[in-house]
Amino acid sequence: MADITKNYQVEGMTCGHCEKSVQEEIGEIFGVTDVQASHESGTVSVSGAGFTDEQVAEAVEEAGYSLK
Amino acid sequence: MADITKNYQVEGMTCGHCEKSVQEEIGEIFGVTDVQASHESGTVSVSGAGFTDEQVAEAVEEAGYSLK
Repeated sequence: MADITKNYQVEGMTCGHCEKSVQEEIGEIFGVTDVQASHESGTVSVSGAGFTDEQVAEAVEEAGYSLK
Repeated sequence: MADITKNYQVEGMTCGHCEKSVQEEIGEIFGVTDVQASHESGTVSVSGAGFTDEQVAEAVEEAGYSLK
């Protein structure tokens, strides 16, 4: 399965620590190969194959934030 | 030597992760017995004995922030 990249809007990230928390949680999803979060743009870019929006939403909440 | 509590203004803390980073670094100073950082008020309260303002300033910078 080819890798895809999806972008999500995340509410509440204010600094690099927040980005790291979000990246760590999303990075644990099976199939995710790369994650880049930015508190400046309030977004997270997720690459990989086989992951779902629901899994991303759950991971973001696990980190203490939420998808817009 | 009796414990004292000193309050410092810290620039740049935006969330609970930032508070934790500042607390961890200041907590490593010899003589410090308690540290409470607040990103809402932009302050850190340091209790203990024998620590200096310079040590606190260095610890805050180590964490990636600065005293006002």
